[in-house]
Amino acid sequence: MENQQIEELLKQMTMDEKIGQLLQLTPPFFKGSSEHGKITGPLAQLKISDDIVKNTGSVLGASGAKEIRSIQEQHLKDNRLGIPLLFMADITHGYETIFPIPLAIGCSWDLNLAQKSAEIAAKEGAVSGTHVTFAPMVDLVRDPRWGRVMESTGEDSYLNSEFAKAQVKGFQGEDLKNDPNRLATCVKHFAAYGAPEGGRDYNTVNMSERQLRESYLPAYRAALDAGSKLVMTAFNTVDGIPATGNKKLMRDLLRDEWGFDGVVISDWGAVKELIPHGVAEDEREAAYKAIQAGVDIEMMTTCYPNHLKELIESGHVAEELLNEAALRILQLKNELGLFENPYRGLDEVQEKEVILSEEHREATRELASKSCVLLQNNYNILPINPSQKIALIGPFAESNDILGPWSWKGDKNAAITLRKGLEEKLGNNRLIVKKGCEIESITDEQLNHAMTAAEQADVIILALGEHSDMSGEAGSRSNIKLPDSQLKLVEKVHGLGKPTITVLFNGRPLDLHGVYDKTDAILEAWFPGTEGGRAITDILYGDVNPSGKLSMSFPYSVGQVPVYYNHYNTGRPQGAEDAQVRYVSQYLDIPNEALFPFGYGLSYTTFSYQNMKLSTDTITPDDKLEVSITVKNTGNIAGEETVQLYVRDLVGEVVRPVKELKGFEKIHLEPGEEKNVTFEITEEQLRYYHSDLSFESDEGTFEVYVGPNSCDVQSLPFRLIK
Amino acid sequence: MENQQIEELLKQMTMDEKIGQLLQLTPPFFKGSSEHGKITGPLAQLKISDDIVKNTGSVLGASGAKEIRSIQEQHLKDNRLGIPLLFMADITHGYETIFPIPLAIGCSWDLNLAQKSAEIAAKEGAVSGTHVTFAPMVDLVRDPRWGRVMESTGEDSYLNSEFAKAQVKGFQGEDLKNDPNRLATCVKHFAAYGAPEGGRDYNTVNMSERQLRESYLPAYRAALDAGSKLVMTAFNTVDGIPATGNKKLMRDLLRDEWGFDGVVISDWGAVKELIPHGVAEDEREAAYKAIQAGVDIEMMTTCYPNHLKELIESGHVAEELLNEAALRILQLKNELGLFENPYRGLDEVQEKEVILSEEHREATRELASKSCVLLQNNYNILPINPSQKIALIGPFAESNDILGPWSWKGDKNAAITLRKGLEEKLGNNRLIVKKGCEIESITDEQLNHAMTAAEQADVIILALGEHSDMSGEAGSRSNIKLPDSQLKLVEKVHGLGKPTITVLFNGRPLDLHGVYDKTDAILEAWFPGTEGGRAITDILYGDVNPSGKLSMSFPYSVGQVPVYYNHYNTGRPQGAEDAQVRYVSQYLDIPNEALFPFGYGLSYTTFSYQNMKLSTDTITPDDKLEVSITVKNTGNIAGEETVQLYVRDLVGEVVRPVKELKGFEKIHLEPGEEKNVTFEITEEQLRYYHSDLSFESDEGTFEVYVGPNSCDVQSLPFRLIK
Repeated sequence: MENQQIEELLKQMTMDEKIGQLLQLTPPFFKGSSEHGKITGPLAQLKISDDIVKNTGSVLGASGAKEIRSIQEQHLKDNRLGIPLLFMADITHGYETIFPIPLAIGCSWDLNLAQKSAEIAAKEGAVSGTHVTFAPMVDLVRDPRWGRVMESTGEDSYLNSEFAKAQVKGFQGEDLKNDPNRLATCVKHFAAYGAPEGGRDYNTVNMSERQLRESYLPAYRAALDAGSKLVMTAFNTVDGIPATGNKKLMRDLLRDEWGFDGVVISDWGAVKELIPHGVAEDEREAAYKAIQAGVDIEMMTTCYPNHLKELIESGHVAEELLNEAALRILQLKNELGLFENPYRGLDEVQEKEVILSEEHREATRELASKSCVLLQNNYNILPINPSQKIALIGPFAESNDILGPWSWKGDKNAAITLRKGLEEKLGNNRLIVKKGCEIESITDEQLNHAMTAAEQADVIILALGEHSDMSGEAGSRSNIKLPDSQLKLVEKVHGLGKPTITVLFNGRPLDLHGVYDKTDAILEAWFPGTEGGRAITDILYGDVNPSGKLSMSFPYSVGQVPVYYNHYNTGRPQGAEDAQVRYVSQYLDIPNEALFPFGYGLSYTTFSYQNMKLSTDTITPDDKLEVSITVKNTGNIAGEETVQLYVRDLVGEVVRPVKELKGFEKIHLEPGEEKNVTFEITEEQLRYYHSDLSFESDEGTFEVYVGPNSCDVQSLPFRLIK
Repeated sequence: MENQQIEELLKQMTMDEKIGQLLQLTPPFFKGSSEHGKITGPLAQLKISDDIVKNTGSVLGASGAKEIRSIQEQHLKDNRLGIPLLFMADITHGYETIFPIPLAIGCSWDLNLAQKSAEIAAKEGAVSGTHVTFAPMVDLVRDPRWGRVMESTGEDSYLNSEFAKAQVKGFQGEDLKNDPNRLATCVKHFAAYGAPEGGRDYNTVNMSERQLRESYLPAYRAALDAGSKLVMTAFNTVDGIPATGNKKLMRDLLRDEWGFDGVVISDWGAVKELIPHGVAEDEREAAYKAIQAGVDIEMMTTCYPNHLKELIESGHVAEELLNEAALRILQLKNELGLFENPYRGLDEVQEKEVILSEEHREATRELASKSCVLLQNNYNILPINPSQKIALIGPFAESNDILGPWSWKGDKNAAITLRKGLEEKLGNNRLIVKKGCEIESITDEQLNHAMTAAEQADVIILALGEHSDMSGEAGSRSNIKLPDSQLKLVEKVHGLGKPTITVLFNGRPLDLHGVYDKTDAILEAWFPGTEGGRAITDILYGDVNPSGKLSMSFPYSVGQVPVYYNHYNTGRPQGAEDAQVRYVSQYLDIPNEALFPFGYGLSYTTFSYQNMKLSTDTITPDDKLEVSITVKNTGNIAGEETVQLYVRDLVGEVVRPVKELKGFEKIHLEPGEEKNVTFEITEEQLRYYHSDLSFESDEGTFEVYVGPNSCDVQSLPFRLIK
């Protein structure tokens, strides 16, 4: 349709029909759904009539070409103007072919593979009938207690921004209307959902606007700059006002300042949650605040259908707000081509062909192997010599719970366990497998069996971690160590004095005390997705040389949280030349530093960084600086290295981070090969938010750092002159 | 002097002399000091000439009438205009007679005793020659990792405000000029020093201005409203700018908005620390930013003496700023009567008489017994029957390290240990004392001796805790449990199955797992001060009925931090009627609630709360509401109870705390006695900071709660109509 036709359509709509477009419901409410009528619990209390359903604008969490076709067909019959439904779903790190969790993808530092993973997820989702994915989640995360750190690419706003753009490109492609294999994206959760107090999900977020703009907003903005069609509101408050009712955030900043004219959707139930938050007395006020804030779609509560009409008719809400919201939703449907083809993309034949295809499996296997981070490799115990006899022990030895949270369409039975991966490599002769313990419990019998197996092996692989329910939404943990049962297993196995490798499956940075000190090698495999077992095996045997680097710091202990690389210096930094013994910013009992820092990860080869140079020692706004360094593979096998660029502004109007990531490049080097890596620095990259919220750079001295991670760097100074 | 004379004096001063008034140094720089010339380490690097010293305005940390007289005498000879020095010192919870640490005083909820303790500290300090104390510290604290929580009265802005006023009144009295037994106060640390990220001292503070005003500023303001003469800057940043160079905070808010015209002093070295913070390139810029921000006195660095003259002469700093600062300092000296008597207060005879006098000892004994909090008393094991045989075990059994941090003038040898207190009560027949372990280590021998003693006793008292260096400035701990050595001792003693009482000596709320589950009674004695052993004995044997209530929550574990009673509800509160099983704001592994909540503390008697009534169910700005409740002593002995009043604003423009303390009353009840306790609520108490920073109340429904602590309350609703 032409835009003008959309506007004409809007004019034909009754107020109820417009309000209906603003509602999103799950399949059981729709006659065409196979789940129709299965409405229990809180859903039943919504008391949604068929009259409301027939006007509803969108559907949440439907799946499958057949199901979605059926719902759409019936709806087109029931809806007076034949306005097609929009189908949205959480397709985050894959649809049925599950990729590693986003935090793992962040550790790949591989934007191309991340984009490809989104493209594949989009394709599987699109042929199954979905139009919009609730992705990418780009929340900045600094607190590993929070269960949803697994959904983010990590703690750095620049890295998150790069991944945000890659994911939007991968999901959306260039032309949604003409490419039915793509999904519109919905960046979330706007804003600062990743900073809940105490790491407790949904909890209060408290920061200054300057801090919000400096650290938390850039990745959302990057996703929008890349063209994301929708924005989802966060559950949390932003300076005392829940995002879903936050006019300053959603309308003044997102719409007016940033010019976002796409669809804003609430998170599940978040409009009505303005009541328990305590900023709305009842559903009517919740509806009022949400529409004023600019929330177009209400997900799974009925404040809009029940109250918006009265609010408009009584003059409390301008009808224009409703018209704008409905128009944006219709425009989105039009951008997806739904008026031309309400069955856009869905294709039962293709659905069978593309989902979990070999090509898709290969892609997730590749990304999974690039997402694993080798945290420790004492005595170069890895890679394993295939002639050695292996005892594979631990609750993840043959667990298929390796897809991670938000993989609702992922079939665990299609997942390749570590046992399976190793068997394919080794056969059964050199492999003994024992569980050793459950994730959160252990029996003497389990332990004894494990020890017997371990005693017979040359090398022990411990497959440990968190159940996928221990992270993800509402999966906050106050204790971020492995459960005691597994630490006991590690301790016992350690007592044997044999070469031991730990492979970790988990959704958050862990406190690895009790593991890193009792095991020779640690491979952080996260939740690696459908091909996890093969990808890990690829690394364990050196078929792939590990290249992942942490995108989120591993704290020394939970008592150190939050710990992140780009902190501020304080007035009494530890380690300063004139520092006193006691009166510096430190803990009495642990270091200030993360156990494993941002950007860190080992390879089976080694790299030297030499000959760092700047093209000039002063820059102006009109020119740029080139930083170059020679990176050489000094080992015996080929490998990939992510060369990282950091900058520090030594004096600011407000305090500046001790380092800020400003660029990175992933290079491949054959043994002995060297490459000159060059980064550009421009004045634009040196801008920051001042106390008056102006975004500009200051004249003065900067330090530029290059290295393999955020700690192990070389540096040179330069000056900016304006 | 008359004000006009002060102004005339200022006119006679050279620029160097004025700048000199802005400098504060320690005694070794002064010729008259017994420590003269003992300048080593960082102090030597200051390169302070005699010319600078002779113009210096104030002295930090001198003590003793003789010493201070000597410094002053010499200075009056050396200073061209004979301007007397101002002597300042950290006299926080006592001078030589040491009172419990402020966090303990907060737990007394006894404003009269708090005021009296300040009055006594002032008197001892004043006769010893001090003029100004760096107290009260009123920083709001929510993170027990931070070592300086011991210096605060706790986590509540209202309670802190009340204690701030009591302390200012106690230290300053009514008339500083004519009452030489008083000290001018310096409220600190402005602002929000109590909120360092990660609980790491000096670390970044990050919050919105609204949050700052709502929670953190009220107690400073209360101290100023009570007349505090000085303000000390905080070490931390406030929204990215260190307080000491923060013009918006120190000049715009403190001076212009609040009208504070007293002296602002930097914390130790904080002016120069603008350099490591990264907001000043060098000392010159640090001086520039501090004077612009309105910092009058620079403590222990020399940015002002080295650069202020040039900054003024070159036109970068208005001379008026220097004149104002110098004038404020001279005015303070005048308010203290120093121009009439530069030896104000100091008196070597009185010094001997009043310091550690019986009266002062009695006062700290009383306050210490009111500050102890009985956290647990299973089977009413306490009070102890004096006929029982006691094993007193633990590193604090006969430790005199019970004065706590910031008690530099306190003599540990004058402190009454718990052993001493018990011996005075019991004699030696029924008391065996063993150390059991060190604070952070244990030997088998120690443990065996302890177990032998324990086996012989009827009742075991474990005296456990933290070394005083484990809290206080720069005393941050990531682990807030008792050290393992002591937990091991508890575990072993627990195995005996005998009645066991734990007495805790410590400077922060602890994670008491491993203690509360393995001991029958817990008495939190904090660092109780000079008479600690007697005060604790008073309680253990029922000579005093415990009445302390926590002024800071005891977290379930460090992974729950921050936990505080007046949090927000979130959109998905735990325990709501329609709450889902998983998708609520909670941890998977621990409760949301503190182990021991704010306001909590047991008595040896019991109290009933009945017949809660409101005088009306609606109020307007013109009238008030009376809340009344009948509190009855339902036990067999007399006791004190702190009746607490909380209010919740059910719907706000911004989210409101689930409860806010709005009043309390400490009452004494004989057995069977009942009292009607009445609180007033006015519209003024219902005001809060809105998103536009307006401070006003909203029409609507409120809930008022009354009870013995922040959890165990009754409630009634009322409405505010405007």
